[in-house]
Amino acid sequence: MNMIDVITDKKLGKELTQEEIDLFVEAAAHGTAPDYQLAALLMAIRLNGMTARETTALTLAMQKSGDTVDLSGIPGIKVDKHSTGGVGDTTTLILAPLVAACGVPVSKMSGRGLGHTGGTLDKLESIPGMSVALSQDQFFEQVKRIGVAVIGQTGTLAPADKTLYALRDVTATVDSLPLIASSIMSKKLAAGSDAIVLDVKTGSGAIMHDLEGSIQLASAMVDIGTLAGKPVTAVVTGMEQPLGTHVGNALEVKDAIDVLAGRTKGDLLDVSLLLGAHMLVLGGVAADLKAAGKKLKQALESGAGLERFAEMIRAQGGDPRVTEDVSLLPQARVVRSVPVGQHGFVTRMDTTELGLAAQAMGAGRQRKEDSLDYSVGFVLPVRIGDEVFPEDRFFTLYARTEEEADRAEEAVRRAIVLGNEPVARPPLWYAQITKDGVVKPE
Amino acid sequence: MNMIDVITDKKLGKELTQEEIDLFVEAAAHGTAPDYQLAALLMAIRLNGMTARETTALTLAMQKSGDTVDLSGIPGIKVDKHSTGGVGDTTTLILAPLVAACGVPVSKMSGRGLGHTGGTLDKLESIPGMSVALSQDQFFEQVKRIGVAVIGQTGTLAPADKTLYALRDVTATVDSLPLIASSIMSKKLAAGSDAIVLDVKTGSGAIMHDLEGSIQLASAMVDIGTLAGKPVTAVVTGMEQPLGTHVGNALEVKDAIDVLAGRTKGDLLDVSLLLGAHMLVLGGVAADLKAAGKKLKQALESGAGLERFAEMIRAQGGDPRVTEDVSLLPQARVVRSVPVGQHGFVTRMDTTELGLAAQAMGAGRQRKEDSLDYSVGFVLPVRIGDEVFPEDRFFTLYARTEEEADRAEEAVRRAIVLGNEPVARPPLWYAQITKDGVVKPE
Repeated sequence: MNMIDVITDKKLGKELTQEEIDLFVEAAAHGTAPDYQLAALLMAIRLNGMTARETTALTLAMQKSGDTVDLSGIPGIKVDKHSTGGVGDTTTLILAPLVAACGVPVSKMSGRGLGHTGGTLDKLESIPGMSVALSQDQFFEQVKRIGVAVIGQTGTLAPADKTLYALRDVTATVDSLPLIASSIMSKKLAAGSDAIVLDVKTGSGAIMHDLEGSIQLASAMVDIGTLAGKPVTAVVTGMEQPLGTHVGNALEVKDAIDVLAGRTKGDLLDVSLLLGAHMLVLGGVAADLKAAGKKLKQALESGAGLERFAEMIRAQGGDPRVTEDVSLLPQARVVRSVPVGQHGFVTRMDTTELGLAAQAMGAGRQRKEDSLDYSVGFVLPVRIGDEVFPEDRFFTLYARTEEEADRAEEAVRRAIVLGNEPVARPPLWYAQITKDGVVKPE
Repeated sequence: MNMIDVITDKKLGKELTQEEIDLFVEAAAHGTAPDYQLAALLMAIRLNGMTARETTALTLAMQKSGDTVDLSGIPGIKVDKHSTGGVGDTTTLILAPLVAACGVPVSKMSGRGLGHTGGTLDKLESIPGMSVALSQDQFFEQVKRIGVAVIGQTGTLAPADKTLYALRDVTATVDSLPLIASSIMSKKLAAGSDAIVLDVKTGSGAIMHDLEGSIQLASAMVDIGTLAGKPVTAVVTGMEQPLGTHVGNALEVKDAIDVLAGRTKGDLLDVSLLLGAHMLVLGGVAADLKAAGKKLKQALESGAGLERFAEMIRAQGGDPRVTEDVSLLPQARVVRSVPVGQHGFVTRMDTTELGLAAQAMGAGRQRKEDSLDYSVGFVLPVRIGDEVFPEDRFFTLYARTEEEADRAEEAVRRAIVLGNEPVARPPLWYAQITKDGVVKPE
């Protein structure tokens, strides 16, 4: 058996055997087959799909292609959380300290932003002095001591995925359900936690634009976790508009602090509470979602969540005073408030375009090597379903120059559709998926 | 627009634009895109297909990627003939001199064998002294003088096809109708003839095993020729069994000489007459197939065809006496006649396996750099539908060693299925296709 046999079988729509998948992953991890054969196979997978059995076998083979983090030295049930990526989506900054404050240890490895979505590491680095590059020992010690740490990846997790991810990007094979599911889950399983909560986004700013595809992706990942012996819960949440009102690195840190301080309500808080409740249940500190929700609200109201965030910042070298005084965060030179200028109803948003507008302002990378301006971005208080009037504030830009503000003003305005008829507010979540099945809102 | 856009469009099943196809062919001809992007696109084409318009645009772009032979200096309507490749299929050696003897100039560039099918150039080189490496001037001069030359390719014809052909071989994308059709037709159009007769094989030894696929392939190539302004006729003929009774280089030259001398009748003669009739009609020397058939038979019976073959051999440096005395061709050391050994009916043959058996004996190449033994192969006088008896000759092996004869005996025997019930003889041809439509046998 060689790579041509593997490609042929997938081309003909056959289910690949364990041996074939191992050969594929070996080739991706160690370069034992040329990239053009991997590319042909990726396209055959994109067009002919994979069964649940194949997707799980691929995930486990990719996980085993590199290191697996051993978290057993940290007491308690470690619960990881992963989002498929959104705009203004800073639930990790809220959840990590809040869930830790409720007694579930959070040892989280996060990523950087690329494309239209932000990255948790970039947001954390906007806090003066904050480091996300801890050694494995420092990482473990911090989680044992204060129950929470959020850092960059240590070790070589799933190197096969690294090769395939880079190749998918340049061969138009990113949008493949089994390839997305196995890419995410191989890294999550390698990161060593005991249970995983997945936030699968759906809508104009998500990797999957349609709800059915998002639910299938979420189900596939829950199935993989179940077959790998790890409890996984997935929540499909809306990305028809940015989750929080703030988009940009320091701006999203401020948004998270405002939520933890109880000053800001809304979708970002509500999605954080929903994901957090699942984390507490999987972490074994709450019997059900209702009890978990109560616990989270207490931690919010008592200020325990915000306090834990300050502790985490201090432990990682940052200035914890930002949690009391957000003006210590980087401030943009140009601040421009833009009024709506007409009457109407917020009907629709192109969330990917909003993310790209922030990226163009300097909040995100176009190439891996680009450096960021932490201060820039925008605050967009309006939501789909809102009625707006000409003199209302539409959004506020935080830019480096007046020219960049001009371009961003145009781009953000273009991404928001105002109509003459009221529209319904989109639901907060569309599906909650466990190994027992799919629950949809009533 | 870049290669990722092209791949994306084909992945989504869209029709590629002229601009997209030009970008693809440019990348293949000049290496302006990495092989992994070409490979992903080839797989997307294999799985999502191409429209007739796309296939023609691809063919013409590939043709234009290199040189085009200008045959206008040679008087008359030049008719090319191409076979998709078969076993024991030596129609070119019969047709080139026979058609030339009927007044149609034949300036043919042929290929070498690779895989289970033989190559015309290898067969010609089995004639002592024969050269197939003529300069363009020598080639033209010979065609003008004696009306026929069969040589290896001169110039750089369709370099984009060369890249894609090599890549298809290692990415399991050979079996794609638009890719096969554009590969063949780009080279045929670049070879500069005025009209083309295609012999598209179908059955166990053909590139297309099923009849429907073979007819689709033939129709696609006729459509391309029509859109390119060149008359093309395609005949779909059977490859359920070797076409001639002889398989191997010198053995097939002998078979061709026997046919031209009127000593051998059967399928090889009949298919040659059918293809030749179309060549005479397209070449403008016969009004219809019936008149063309008569002309061909006269040239056979008068010995004009065999004489022209001798002239061609002499012109290309070979020993023309082989046409009178086939014992001057290379002779194998080991000759073994194998009896059937049982009573039965010849029911089925695995023609690809028969071709591979000859290849293993030394008649074909496993790698491009392998050298051949021109003398080896086998003669298989039985045909599907024949009743055979234990003492009948089954086949005769021509081998280098007794050991190779042993292995070949086993392989050939395994490839021929004898049954207890009589079966019908397969038809000689299944479809004749011109721009006016498909004609099937009555």
